[in-house]
Amino acid sequence: MLGIETFINHTVKDITIASSVIAALREVLGPQSNPVPLHEPCFRGQEWDYVQECLGSGWVSSVGRYVEKFEKQLHDFTGSPFVVATGTGTSALHICLALRNIGPQDEVLVPALSFVATANAVAYTGATPHFVDIEMDSLGMCPVALESYLRGVAVLRGRKFFNRKTGRRLAALLPVHVFGHPCRIEALADLAARYRMDLVEDAAESLGSKSRGKPTGTFGVTAALSFNGNKIITTGGGGAILTADPVLAAQARHLTTQAKLTHPWEYRHDAIGYNYRLPNLNAALGCAQLEQLPAFLASKHKLASRYARVFEPLKEVRFVSEPTGTQSNYWLCTLALEKSNLPLLTCLLEETNKSGIMTRPAWNLLSELPMYRCSPRAPLPVATDAIGRLINIPSSPHHCLDALSP
Amino acid sequence: MLGIETFINHTVKDITIASSVIAALREVLGPQSNPVPLHEPCFRGQEWDYVQECLGSGWVSSVGRYVEKFEKQLHDFTGSPFVVATGTGTSALHICLALRNIGPQDEVLVPALSFVATANAVAYTGATPHFVDIEMDSLGMCPVALESYLRGVAVLRGRKFFNRKTGRRLAALLPVHVFGHPCRIEALADLAARYRMDLVEDAAESLGSKSRGKPTGTFGVTAALSFNGNKIITTGGGGAILTADPVLAAQARHLTTQAKLTHPWEYRHDAIGYNYRLPNLNAALGCAQLEQLPAFLASKHKLASRYARVFEPLKEVRFVSEPTGTQSNYWLCTLALEKSNLPLLTCLLEETNKSGIMTRPAWNLLSELPMYRCSPRAPLPVATDAIGRLINIPSSPHHCLDALSP
Repeated sequence: MLGIETFINHTVKDITIASSVIAALREVLGPQSNPVPLHEPCFRGQEWDYVQECLGSGWVSSVGRYVEKFEKQLHDFTGSPFVVATGTGTSALHICLALRNIGPQDEVLVPALSFVATANAVAYTGATPHFVDIEMDSLGMCPVALESYLRGVAVLRGRKFFNRKTGRRLAALLPVHVFGHPCRIEALADLAARYRMDLVEDAAESLGSKSRGKPTGTFGVTAALSFNGNKIITTGGGGAILTADPVLAAQARHLTTQAKLTHPWEYRHDAIGYNYRLPNLNAALGCAQLEQLPAFLASKHKLASRYARVFEPLKEVRFVSEPTGTQSNYWLCTLALEKSNLPLLTCLLEETNKSGIMTRPAWNLLSELPMYRCSPRAPLPVATDAIGRLINIPSSPHHCLDALSP
Repeated sequence: MLGIETFINHTVKDITIASSVIAALREVLGPQSNPVPLHEPCFRGQEWDYVQECLGSGWVSSVGRYVEKFEKQLHDFTGSPFVVATGTGTSALHICLALRNIGPQDEVLVPALSFVATANAVAYTGATPHFVDIEMDSLGMCPVALESYLRGVAVLRGRKFFNRKTGRRLAALLPVHVFGHPCRIEALADLAARYRMDLVEDAAESLGSKSRGKPTGTFGVTAALSFNGNKIITTGGGGAILTADPVLAAQARHLTTQAKLTHPWEYRHDAIGYNYRLPNLNAALGCAQLEQLPAFLASKHKLASRYARVFEPLKEVRFVSEPTGTQSNYWLCTLALEKSNLPLLTCLLEETNKSGIMTRPAWNLLSELPMYRCSPRAPLPVATDAIGRLINIPSSPHHCLDALSP
């Protein structure tokens, strides 16, 4: 793959570019003596009060008022009619798919560029991830390439479309809002409808992002959020399922609580369920974090605009701005090299990390991971090119918090 | 099944017995005005300090020093050479089985009487739970019935035993230490060895219990613990994998962190992994809880001996004491009716709960749940009888804490 671990003698030119990039990063981040993490959580609200109150109540586990409060706050913030909090974003995505009865005879269309959980959640259901290409503008699924690909690969049999080559049902379209940037979700929703696939949104990275004013996570029949430690808000580990469908919401609640039927003392379960609910302790943290989300979003926007300004003069890299018509939460701020250049990318990664500024490349393509090498895939020219171009830079919500006008 | 929800006109005799049981419970529990929960956590140690320190450090997610400390403390307490903390007990059990490459062609022998997670963990791997009977003494798997059953059903093909009827491999034996009472684990380990099955222990309920001086969770090739809110110690939600095998321990750590290969910035994954690690925030709580475990165990022993004493005179119910040769953690204290008697059991449940003392029956048999109705099973006379006899009574660790000698 990238071969980043291979020793490379960097060229003088690449070292010079790396120095300019580090200088630009330092201009924004300031001359911090400690290493600058890629993304660290920011606890400046009621975190301790809520967690303390939670501990004092004794209700730290899967039942408690903070879970309900957190779900209500997420509902208020996203506008999603129903919210079910889960222990991780991965488990939320797993249930989003399981709710649609996706299983071993199915394929789910997934962008080749995403965190591994996107494909793994598909695999947990027994279905096969089927990888499709991205576009450089949003870094998400490319609706144009997808449409052209589907025209060739999808065949209507009865009421559903099937993969002509594998014979499996094309059950769902699973776009990802990569690094927080909304993908072209309206066009993808349109394609999903035309090809009779469920639209399930992986909004793990994009809480607070919007496309044409509508929050990501509210376009799909179901959507998953994540509150892992590296996300814009965190519950330690956590996630949520969003849906507008009351029946799916009830099923989500049921499946995430071991499918236990409600009864004051009896233990009856009517399906294979999961122990996937968010503990109240973690929800308490989440409630305090959500209260600060508007400030975090503002801070990250400010950070993004500062980055955009300082990288403007550099011709070898550009700062990836939110796609037209969208508001990104800028979860992970990203630079793109003008063209795929592995030696330069490696040089940038090594030099920035060496200088105490944490950076990282995009994930390896899911389609290249050993467990997915035999999965079906569309041509992936843009995704393949992108991993030689993308580099994430420090994006913590605290960087510009103090610079916000009161 | 139990039909507990059906309205029953209780007999005068049953009401009288219920009154005696309530009087005995009140004698032990005292005249509390608030409802007495079945099992509530007890936070009287360093919980606040550790959790606050964790929040202050910013490390609340899957990496952090409390996770390491918690694993070390569990290692010290159980003597298990390797400990891998997980987000739930269910996920720990799932990985315990996955580590042994248990999959769709396999069956796992499971006691019919357990919480649903025991069978679900088997189902997550694609394998089929195969239900076997219990004994009334330990409430766990009966080695005598199992041996006699295996003689009929198991057939050696090559190096492994198979189910003669289904053709599937008998891959593992999964005993459970029900309500904290150690099952006859030595005899079961012996049977597992003779029938070349992996012994995987569901020790979710039995942290602190011992059989012939050896802690439960250290007999199997792998074992799962749980720290759910209702367990003897809690992390909100949490669990742990125990093993003496360094290779399995490394694999457990790998599989529970999305099978990510170690690298300062690259994202490569070499297997379908899971987001199953315990967040540091929850581990912080766990560290404080573990420090108090010896006191909790002593308190629960005292509670058990008080219960045993007050129920001694009653002839219709007996208090279930730890099996000979074992030390139980008395996770859930349990009464057993002299014989299966659903009207009396229902009367006891209704009257105790009505009087503000929470009680519950044993779980419905796993073999009777709709998703497992087609699973293979041994004759289950004792388990079937048991669910008409067992009732759990309040068991929180705080009840006798103050009564312990300093």
